[in-house]
Amino acid sequence: MAASIAPVALDAMGGDNAPVAIVQGAIDAARKGQAIILVGPEERVRAELDRQRASWNLPVQVRHAPEVVGMDDHPGQAMRRKKQNSIRVALELVRDGEASAAVSAGNSGAFMAGAMMVLGCSGDVQRPAIVSVLPAARGRPLMLDAGANVDCKPLHLVQFALMGEVYSRRVLCVSRPRVALLANGEEASKGTALTRTAAAALARSGLRFQGYCEGRDLLGGDVDVVVTDGFTGNVALKTMEGTAQALALMMKEALHRTLPARLGGALVRNAIDEIRRKVDWREIGGAPLLGVDGVAVIAHGSSDRRAVANAIARAADGARASCTEEIGRAAAQASALLDAERGEEESTGIRGRRRASEA
Amino acid sequence: MAASIAPVALDAMGGDNAPVAIVQGAIDAARKGQAIILVGPEERVRAELDRQRASWNLPVQVRHAPEVVGMDDHPGQAMRRKKQNSIRVALELVRDGEASAAVSAGNSGAFMAGAMMVLGCSGDVQRPAIVSVLPAARGRPLMLDAGANVDCKPLHLVQFALMGEVYSRRVLCVSRPRVALLANGEEASKGTALTRTAAAALARSGLRFQGYCEGRDLLGGDVDVVVTDGFTGNVALKTMEGTAQALALMMKEALHRTLPARLGGALVRNAIDEIRRKVDWREIGGAPLLGVDGVAVIAHGSSDRRAVANAIARAADGARASCTEEIGRAAAQASALLDAERGEEESTGIRGRRRASEA
Repeated sequence: MAASIAPVALDAMGGDNAPVAIVQGAIDAARKGQAIILVGPEERVRAELDRQRASWNLPVQVRHAPEVVGMDDHPGQAMRRKKQNSIRVALELVRDGEASAAVSAGNSGAFMAGAMMVLGCSGDVQRPAIVSVLPAARGRPLMLDAGANVDCKPLHLVQFALMGEVYSRRVLCVSRPRVALLANGEEASKGTALTRTAAAALARSGLRFQGYCEGRDLLGGDVDVVVTDGFTGNVALKTMEGTAQALALMMKEALHRTLPARLGGALVRNAIDEIRRKVDWREIGGAPLLGVDGVAVIAHGSSDRRAVANAIARAADGARASCTEEIGRAAAQASALLDAERGEEESTGIRGRRRASEA
Repeated sequence: MAASIAPVALDAMGGDNAPVAIVQGAIDAARKGQAIILVGPEERVRAELDRQRASWNLPVQVRHAPEVVGMDDHPGQAMRRKKQNSIRVALELVRDGEASAAVSAGNSGAFMAGAMMVLGCSGDVQRPAIVSVLPAARGRPLMLDAGANVDCKPLHLVQFALMGEVYSRRVLCVSRPRVALLANGEEASKGTALTRTAAAALARSGLRFQGYCEGRDLLGGDVDVVVTDGFTGNVALKTMEGTAQALALMMKEALHRTLPARLGGALVRNAIDEIRRKVDWREIGGAPLLGVDGVAVIAHGSSDRRAVANAIARAADGARASCTEEIGRAAAQASALLDAERGEEESTGIRGRRRASEA
């Protein structure tokens, strides 16, 4: 393991399989040397550690947080009313420097609201975005926003691009990330008023900006940072998931239909399992919430032990890269880029009118 | 073949493989009894028919159209300036009752612009939408709009739902189509201002409306008509395409890596080919442009003979169902549904404010 970091704070009570799977994942990560602070009702968490016979030598602490946010709780209300809930306490450990990152598989809305309240935004970031690392065959492409911000303005998209570039470079170690805006075609005339304004600003950003990319480019390996609003990003992400599932089902049925297919199916099982692992969200682990002033990773609600351990690993990668401030500084450039763009529009007088009529 | 219909008008000059693949597809369809009018420069089309040794007995006519719209031509300009282009002449055959449907694999923007100019909208339809039939394992789900209208208003989405329901029921023979709006989550609180307004109106439409569906539901078989704006629809469609391609590539690589996988791969080839056919857009053929006053089908730009033949079959299905007027009548209900919704908002005073602040 690389440079040592402060422990990762883990919401022990979040997700469908809490606390069992959360504690399992914590133990697995701790066995690899990652220090963990499990946050939740102390007795219950300790009982689960005992039940799983966790060794006393593992770097796992417990921090008491008596309250739990339910999956159906209203995010903002839960955060304000339950001051001692496990999500909030985990985030406070990050704010206070006791933990290097916070991870939760619980109510993701509450986790985002809590991160905004407790950590705040980094630098000039207007809205944090969820980063999804995509299961591509080549490279490590990421897409943001994967669902935090449904209604976006050009400023948000431009900030997402600047923030995502830092994450790709610093955490995923992509040397000069190629950035593109997701749209309905590659030509500059495509897209919406929103994407066209953002594209014009990004063209002068100094990023390795490639203009628009399409849905079919997400897994193609030719783009490293795909930028979109949270509505479109969420639809694209779940469409990928659904398509992979539908194809897996078709494959399963086809491999049972004839005798040769059944025989062959037995021989190719390893190959299929390998692909299944590659596209499995549990391997990806968690989605970082980029733009808050600290490392916060959202794990899938139905995380099992492997997903939890991978989310911890992702959080630790983020903490080690220690690029939160750089993300805040990068985001600060967005306003100037859009102002320059607006200035040019006003002097030509063409685009300005179009935007006014579309507003 | 079912009830006989007037010939299908086919743009002989549209697409990457025109006129060769177009004429091939026409011959294949004609051999199955479908009458075709090939539209394009007469000498060139006849030469291609001769080259392919098309029998004189086949129900294939040629209609002269000296001009051709290029893939890069500006849609509106091309339609206005080249009055005798093959797309326009094909659409005029439909308008004049000589053909039952028009099909083109050419410049899709020009085909849409031409359909609006020549055929006009059916009834109260505000904007025609592209219908994409999805390659699901179960059922015949469709999604609209797949790319014609990037910036949509609630009225458009509500009309798409009403139009799509008619197409699903009358052309795809789904007995009581389940309709849903594509969004970033299933809860009514999700979506954008646009989808929330459309959802409220659709809830009182009498359609079998299921609220929101997600990207992962597109191929799940539990929704028959997925409604979305053309930007999101295009991204979702191409994401499906890209995911299927990426998985196919991973599979191909995995099946070459080890000896057992290579052996097994030979045995499962038929099964894989079967799936490939199922998700192949060439099997789907073409995307109907719904809401114009006549049957118009957009074929893929890189259509080969099979894709062309399938697009012709789809157009013929649409013509036989003869539901253009019903689509126009269905769309006319949208305004009233939205007015009722607005009335309720004004009386409660809550939603009205939200919408104003989001406008």
